[in-house]
Amino acid sequence: MWDVAEELKAMLVFAEHRYYGESLPFGPDSFKDSRHLNFLTSEQALADFAELITHLKRTIPGAGDQPVIAIGGSYGGMLAAWFRMKYPHVVVGALAASAPIWQFEDLVPCNVFMKIVSTDFKKSGPNCSESIRRSWDAINRLSNTGSGLQWLTQALHLCSPLTSDDIQHFKEWISETWVNLAMVDYPYESNFLQPLPAWPIKVVCQYLKNPTVSDSLLLENIFQALNIYYNYSGQAKCLNISETATSRLGILGWSYQACTEMVMPFCANGVDDMFEPFLWNLKQFSDECFNQWGVRPRPSWITTLYGGKNISSHSNIIFSNGDLDPWSGGGVTKDISHTLVAITIPEGAHHLDLRANNAYDPASVLLARSLEVRHMKQWIRGFHDNARRQH
Amino acid sequence: MWDVAEELKAMLVFAEHRYYGESLPFGPDSFKDSRHLNFLTSEQALADFAELITHLKRTIPGAGDQPVIAIGGSYGGMLAAWFRMKYPHVVVGALAASAPIWQFEDLVPCNVFMKIVSTDFKKSGPNCSESIRRSWDAINRLSNTGSGLQWLTQALHLCSPLTSDDIQHFKEWISETWVNLAMVDYPYESNFLQPLPAWPIKVVCQYLKNPTVSDSLLLENIFQALNIYYNYSGQAKCLNISETATSRLGILGWSYQACTEMVMPFCANGVDDMFEPFLWNLKQFSDECFNQWGVRPRPSWITTLYGGKNISSHSNIIFSNGDLDPWSGGGVTKDISHTLVAITIPEGAHHLDLRANNAYDPASVLLARSLEVRHMKQWIRGFHDNARRQH
Repeated sequence: MWDVAEELKAMLVFAEHRYYGESLPFGPDSFKDSRHLNFLTSEQALADFAELITHLKRTIPGAGDQPVIAIGGSYGGMLAAWFRMKYPHVVVGALAASAPIWQFEDLVPCNVFMKIVSTDFKKSGPNCSESIRRSWDAINRLSNTGSGLQWLTQALHLCSPLTSDDIQHFKEWISETWVNLAMVDYPYESNFLQPLPAWPIKVVCQYLKNPTVSDSLLLENIFQALNIYYNYSGQAKCLNISETATSRLGILGWSYQACTEMVMPFCANGVDDMFEPFLWNLKQFSDECFNQWGVRPRPSWITTLYGGKNISSHSNIIFSNGDLDPWSGGGVTKDISHTLVAITIPEGAHHLDLRANNAYDPASVLLARSLEVRHMKQWIRGFHDNARRQH
Repeated sequence: MWDVAEELKAMLVFAEHRYYGESLPFGPDSFKDSRHLNFLTSEQALADFAELITHLKRTIPGAGDQPVIAIGGSYGGMLAAWFRMKYPHVVVGALAASAPIWQFEDLVPCNVFMKIVSTDFKKSGPNCSESIRRSWDAINRLSNTGSGLQWLTQALHLCSPLTSDDIQHFKEWISETWVNLAMVDYPYESNFLQPLPAWPIKVVCQYLKNPTVSDSLLLENIFQALNIYYNYSGQAKCLNISETATSRLGILGWSYQACTEMVMPFCANGVDDMFEPFLWNLKQFSDECFNQWGVRPRPSWITTLYGGKNISSHSNIIFSNGDLDPWSGGGVTKDISHTLVAITIPEGAHHLDLRANNAYDPASVLLARSLEVRHMKQWIRGFHDNARRQH
């Protein structure tokens, strides 16, 4: 956005989503209970954006007769797409980067996400995904004994001693680390979820070349790999299995949203992917939501509200996706019409196209960005043509 | 709908709007206070319809792959249009009959409504609108004295004695009667708001041919005219100025909606119309709303939400309007695009096209209905063509 604002003579407005950052409708009580959280929905967020844009157009001199474009990545990309669908009179188009608008119900297979993560590891070094696939049983075997648990705590430099009750969570924490690495597998040093080297999965995979070693050696290698993600800066004294990303992304708000509207089914089978198999269990998920927030999810509502795969009557939305990004599995990766277009970036991770220009950008993301700008210019031209015709 | 269902092989579904009829979310407490009324919004109603249709499609054998069309008149017409705008994946098109989607903010002049009412009376008999225009001052003069008030009570057969405090309301009650007559000026006997003869304004105007008579004779004539509306059945013993329409239309729910989202500015200047001049006073309206419901209106929200005049990116909506209908002033009476079409019915009052076929139907409404069916068939064909292309 910063890079193309001048070319498009654009004003940049960053709208903070309610219940995130400093936009807490009830201050410190905002996450207190479901009554206070009742106003945290995607619809309310879209309405905020509509009010904000309408307000800015009314109050900023010269803004009233200018076109507006919605831009977002990830959940923000879904919001950008949905905003154009629901408020086409407010924005002339939307760039929905890495927006998994189909990661709901059965619109895509629930294992597609984990499959893409695994493919990234498979492609990033010999035996890499196979090493990870074998690590789960190694952990299971070691965690059968007290001395095994003690060894794991030390070998993986964990901040608190592992107990057998922690094992399930411990494995999920490792899984989530691989997932996060897939999301941020950028071609240069970056700091989205954590400070990381260029092509971090390649770096990680250097430690995971040999899957047929002993359990303890395999897990020492796993530690080296995890350490890339959690300790690239060299500052961490130990690894904390209750954290996977820096907390600034608003994990609390998202957890509530996932428990109400944003119900995304995930699963793995251990064959098409490198993870320990798990099923999508709505009942269990619902019970967890009820325990945590006092609410139960509505898994079909997003599809009913935003149309699922039947969105062809809309227009002027770019869906961009990186092939390395696990979220691309729930994204729109084929053109739906000539105004609902898909752009894929083979070397791209999670919304790489929205990141600042970088000397190490692969050609595919440069092409994506220039296509995006071309579409935006077309929307802007169309807006002005229309305005002229009406006068 | 009944008349064309068979031709279109259609199933008819009547969805009752929440807070109307028997659809009371909190039973008898539904209108208790603003907390209980908080769920009465057009958005929630549209969401109900989306859930209902999705549910019916899932559960009725064979319904899943069939197209759905939204049909509504008046507020129901607005909902039909808005439903197609917000849920184009749920309905292939909408017939919005007499839907004043532009009767908000300054999208149309606030006096257009009263102007159309007046034109109806002007066209329905010589001196008719002039007689009504003069009646207001006659009432004002008579209501200056106790004997005048007494005379008015008797001459107009009012159920309770008129006091000087009632005069403003009394005149509004008469105004609303003329407005209602304009809405239901149908070419045959009907019973929408009240049982009425064919072309009721013509009947009313037979009593209002002479505007230059004495105040008392003028008001005796006004009584005869009112009596057509309130006593066509001959059963009424007196006229009750606290009622203008039968109560079944859910006046309570609409009053709350008018005080929150559905803020429709009205005014009259007494020159372009036959009414006593009044301004649109948002401040006063807001205070009344606060007194009655504890809420204040958001006059811009409907425009922000549904787009006001900027709706050209939508498709497959028919806006039908009768030229006799005062609500046509806030309606879409010109084509916006080749799929957002306007149908006008010169001899039509409020959503005449949605009424059952009648031997006295003017040619214009027959033509309107056949155009509407033609568009519907096109939407249905488009839906099946699309489905076929995807398989």
